[in-house]
Amino acid sequence: MKKKQVALLLAPGFEEAEAIIILDVLTRLDIEVTTLACYSSQTLDSYHGLSVNTDALLTGVTAVLYDAVVIPGGPQGSQNLADNQTVLDFIRRHDDAGKWICPICSAAARVLAPHQLLRGRRYVCSGTLSEAVTDGAYVDAPVVEDGNLLSGQGLGAAFDFAFCLAMRLTGDEARIRRQAEHIYHRLTIAL
Amino acid sequence: MKKKQVALLLAPGFEEAEAIIILDVLTRLDIEVTTLACYSSQTLDSYHGLSVNTDALLTGVTAVLYDAVVIPGGPQGSQNLADNQTVLDFIRRHDDAGKWICPICSAAARVLAPHQLLRGRRYVCSGTLSEAVTDGAYVDAPVVEDGNLLSGQGLGAAFDFAFCLAMRLTGDEARIRRQAEHIYHRLTIAL
Repeated sequence: MKKKQVALLLAPGFEEAEAIIILDVLTRLDIEVTTLACYSSQTLDSYHGLSVNTDALLTGVTAVLYDAVVIPGGPQGSQNLADNQTVLDFIRRHDDAGKWICPICSAAARVLAPHQLLRGRRYVCSGTLSEAVTDGAYVDAPVVEDGNLLSGQGLGAAFDFAFCLAMRLTGDEARIRRQAEHIYHRLTIAL
Repeated sequence: MKKKQVALLLAPGFEEAEAIIILDVLTRLDIEVTTLACYSSQTLDSYHGLSVNTDALLTGVTAVLYDAVVIPGGPQGSQNLADNQTVLDFIRRHDDAGKWICPICSAAARVLAPHQLLRGRRYVCSGTLSEAVTDGAYVDAPVVEDGNLLSGQGLGAAFDFAFCLAMRLTGDEARIRRQAEHIYHRLTIAL
């Protein structure tokens, strides 16, 4: 069976631990994660100065349909994603196709909300960013699901968020619980 | 005041989320983290295939004394560190100087124990690796401290491990608790 495919959208300033916890957990569960540079170069720096070489440019995969699109936070990272029309088109195309749209931290408020991509759905984001959001219904919880929108509150929720997304993509709860135990992560949410 | 300096030792196959959670948390607390490639190139791949460009080669900083040395896991990553004499010399030099030695996951068992670098101290590592260790006293806890040896159990303990190291380096408990809350991480250990 073909592995489930996840696009991880990275722009300069992306919250590195959010992005990489998700990459790590999903890969452990046999899901293929492709890091996509939403930028002019495949190499970019994270929020706290880590330089990474992504798998591809987003502009090179605009015809590909992934099973999920993960959108990390980071103050400048999420703003850079929000300012990029290719990113917005990529997310809208996946949302229209019913694929999982997965913002964490500031991403729901900064990337999706200003471009009417929350579409009235329940979501969570970090801090007080929800105060400016008129496009969705904020829920104060580590992980919030509404249809194909799966959002995470912030960095401290990244493991639960990743395991929850893995559950939606694979349905293999026993394996997911084994892996969480294996890495000494205590799940704090229902799967 | 000069920032506290932390060396993060990376070899091909390093556990990316362990390494990067620690980098992220420490940097948020105004501690300077230098990623050091324990390898022939500054660019190397993590356990689950992330390509990163480190700040420097370990061989270029063998005269520098950091406040702490962080040693991440990853099956091949920790083995690559263990097989590298420059790494062992670097760790021993910092240990002799009383600097913090901070293995997480497999690192205590794979890097320190076989080279008599646990020196009888209490430590924790992942899985059943402790069964082959004769050089230290295994303690089953997320984070274990004995003198200047601070060890972490595995990936799920990486946040607590990083906050604990930040506490030892800065002593600023109020700031650390604020930051943990800010990122939605619930500390499960005493600081």
